Amino acid sequence: MLELRTPKGTIDYSPRETMLISKIIDKSISIFKKHGAVCIDTPTFELKEILTNKYGEDSKLIFDLADQGGDICSLRYDLTVPFARYLASNKIAKIKRYQIGKVFRRDNPVVTKGRLREFTQCDFDIAGNYLEMTADAEIIKICVECLSSFDLGQFCISINHRKMLSAIFKIASIPSDLHLTVCSSIDKIDKIQWEAVKLELISKGIDDSQAEIIKKYISKTGSNDLLNELKNDTIYGLEEGKEAIDDLLLLMKYLKIYKIENIVQINLSLARGLDYYTGIIFEASFKQEEVGAVIGGGRYDNLVDGILKSANRKDFTVPCVGFSVGITRIYTLMQKKYKNIKDNDTLVLVVSSGDQFLENKMEILNELWDNNIPAESVFTKRNDFLAQLKYCEQKNIKFCLIIGQDEINSNSVKIKNILKDENFEYIQRDDLVGFIEKNRI
Amino acid sequence: MLELRTPKGTIDYSPRETMLISKIIDKSISIFKKHGAVCIDTPTFELKEILTNKYGEDSKLIFDLADQGGDICSLRYDLTVPFARYLASNKIAKIKRYQIGKVFRRDNPVVTKGRLREFTQCDFDIAGNYLEMTADAEIIKICVECLSSFDLGQFCISINHRKMLSAIFKIASIPSDLHLTVCSSIDKIDKIQWEAVKLELISKGIDDSQAEIIKKYISKTGSNDLLNELKNDTIYGLEEGKEAIDDLLLLMKYLKIYKIENIVQINLSLARGLDYYTGIIFEASFKQEEVGAVIGGGRYDNLVDGILKSANRKDFTVPCVGFSVGITRIYTLMQKKYKNIKDNDTLVLVVSSGDQFLENKMEILNELWDNNIPAESVFTKRNDFLAQLKYCEQKNIKFCLIIGQDEINSNSVKIKNILKDENFEYIQRDDLVGFIEKNRI
Repeated sequence: MLELRTPKGTIDYSPRETMLISKIIDKSISIFKKHGAVCIDTPTFELKEILTNKYGEDSKLIFDLADQGGDICSLRYDLTVPFARYLASNKIAKIKRYQIGKVFRRDNPVVTKGRLREFTQCDFDIAGNYLEMTADAEIIKICVECLSSFDLGQFCISINHRKMLSAIFKIASIPSDLHLTVCSSIDKIDKIQWEAVKLELISKGIDDSQAEIIKKYISKTGSNDLLNELKNDTIYGLEEGKEAIDDLLLLMKYLKIYKIENIVQINLSLARGLDYYTGIIFEASFKQEEVGAVIGGGRYDNLVDGILKSANRKDFTVPCVGFSVGITRIYTLMQKKYKNIKDNDTLVLVVSSGDQFLENKMEILNELWDNNIPAESVFTKRNDFLAQLKYCEQKNIKFCLIIGQDEINSNSVKIKNILKDENFEYIQRDDLVGFIEKNRI
Repeated sequence: MLELRTPKGTIDYSPRETMLISKIIDKSISIFKKHGAVCIDTPTFELKEILTNKYGEDSKLIFDLADQGGDICSLRYDLTVPFARYLASNKIAKIKRYQIGKVFRRDNPVVTKGRLREFTQCDFDIAGNYLEMTADAEIIKICVECLSSFDLGQFCISINHRKMLSAIFKIASIPSDLHLTVCSSIDKIDKIQWEAVKLELISKGIDDSQAEIIKKYISKTGSNDLLNELKNDTIYGLEEGKEAIDDLLLLMKYLKIYKIENIVQINLSLARGLDYYTGIIFEASFKQEEVGAVIGGGRYDNLVDGILKSANRKDFTVPCVGFSVGITRIYTLMQKKYKNIKDNDTLVLVVSSGDQFLENKMEILNELWDNNIPAESVFTKRNDFLAQLKYCEQKNIKFCLIIGQDEINSNSVKIKNILKDENFEYIQRDDLVGFIEKNRI
């Protein structure tokens, strides 16, 4: 027996939902374009080996295509690795681009919280060799502009630096082959308590005193004050620690010029599980909402070079920094706010007071369509007049236009603005398009 | 060694290409909305069994996901079957909807002709029980509006009726279990000669005299004249033949009201290979182009009911008619026309005449961004003045704004409209936003 459902972790989006999602995407795109970005598109699946060794412990979540002969492929897990592959394949060393598309993760889905196996990502990245932290600062500025445009209340961007974590791990004498798996554990701290994270760390071979050193650092949050405090800490004596702290101080200086320094917080527990980050990492979330991070990103300076090296090509350095907007999560939040959004553009419903005026309705519709006026008729078999008026209300259509024998005889139509509770008025057929144009807004 | 390429039959789209594709999609969407359509979205993959037995001989082209435990899934082959599943799952009996998304076919790709393994479809369908041929006529009207909006020259829509083919098969005494495979063969007639089609038919068990009867009918094309000729033919004596001819005559009557009867041609060789069509079928192509059909569609009255029956649900009838716009093929045609389309929105490039004015540039950028003016700076390490001007030209940016020590001292900027060959003019910093707003267009 056929099961009438979508696959686990995937959902259908209704007209109202699709309308909301395209609002979020349109807002984001207009901000990306304001910053001079171009758009690219890459395939939904990639050669499997392109995605191998890029996602740390999350690699097990990659969806594979069946081997039906020919290329061995996987569905993309994010848009970042395909972007790096795009830069490498096309030898592009400098681009400011956005890309919007579905990505796929064999995760355990919590549909109500906006965690799905298929979801839309909307990525913005700056690739190229620029003055220290200038691209990073612009990226954070763009995040703030996006978050503001969604109009979902106050938000905060947490920032950390991969080298800060490396320095902490050095101080705690964590062997380098454990760094990534320790990052994965630390990354869970916004979802589970420290005690649970600690147990996980110990199960991975970290001892109690090492865990305590990690805890000491990752519990720190702040702003310039914290960074200046860290300048007097052991950590600034380490090369990675110094680089991270100097980078973040310069970033904060530029964010002040961009008038957004109060929106960000340095948070030493932010780790982000992905393998490829090398510099700043960040996540944004709305303060009063529980869906978790709605934007995540960071700097990944070696991803393109790594891909080029694996392909035995002469590597050229393409440092990158960027972020993903979690469209599906933001949509989950917006849904609560916009319960009654109109899901169509119809301006005029052409109604007849009987079955016999089908062709007259078609003539009028055709004139409206050819004059770029959104119009519909209900061509159902039993042409119930009240049902047609109800359709007008349901779809929130502004004008109801009626024709019957009288109107046809006098070459006129009856029209009414449904949204205002006005009476029907008669207008001449020749004046129809002009009348609607005039009263469109 | 890693291969730096996309999987067979898939391609990357560059900024210029993506810009063109979104133009095609935007044009289509605005027409769909003019007809009152709403938008839905369904998953990229479906349960495999949903797609089984829907595509006739083309079922072998379906991409499967690997069995990694859990649901057995396949990538969608089109947007029509998922739409029918959506109607069935959500018990929707009436909707006018569009959907845009990637679909996947393990075909032998001819990339240069716009035939790919992954391509974008843009579907419009009307589901519901309406007066005979009213939805069908509106669907053809919408096709015409889309094709006109693409502005690629003259086009033609070929129309046939599934029942016409059934009637022809009855006259030729083709056993009903061969109908679909015969359709698949006939469908190739625009790509290969009749002689090759005939050989294929004979290999499928059709004899010479049967093939000649098929040939006699499928070589007919025309308009109302042809339909009236067929009214006097044996074919009108068969139930299916009568239904097909009456349907098409009524359709032609409505298309005349919609002022598009001259754009369509009745073509009895049009078969369309897909299993699910039950009424009119049609394809559109541009006259001077060789990419083949750019729009294809038809009526499929039993698809939703069939899915409901397979799921042991009480079936309710949801007749549907619709079409797909082959975005990728249209893009292939447009590409030739728009060679130099601007791929970005940047209006102002903020340039400094030296390395030291980084923070001043950032302040200006921030003011422009906050006033919704698309602006960029080149923050490269060696701040070559000429390289910045070149960037302005490359990206086709209208205003070049320069700051140096003199400008900072006098609280002004130098600005030039690059597109007109004017001189730089000095304006006060406070007047900057106003000046650009005024000269934006």
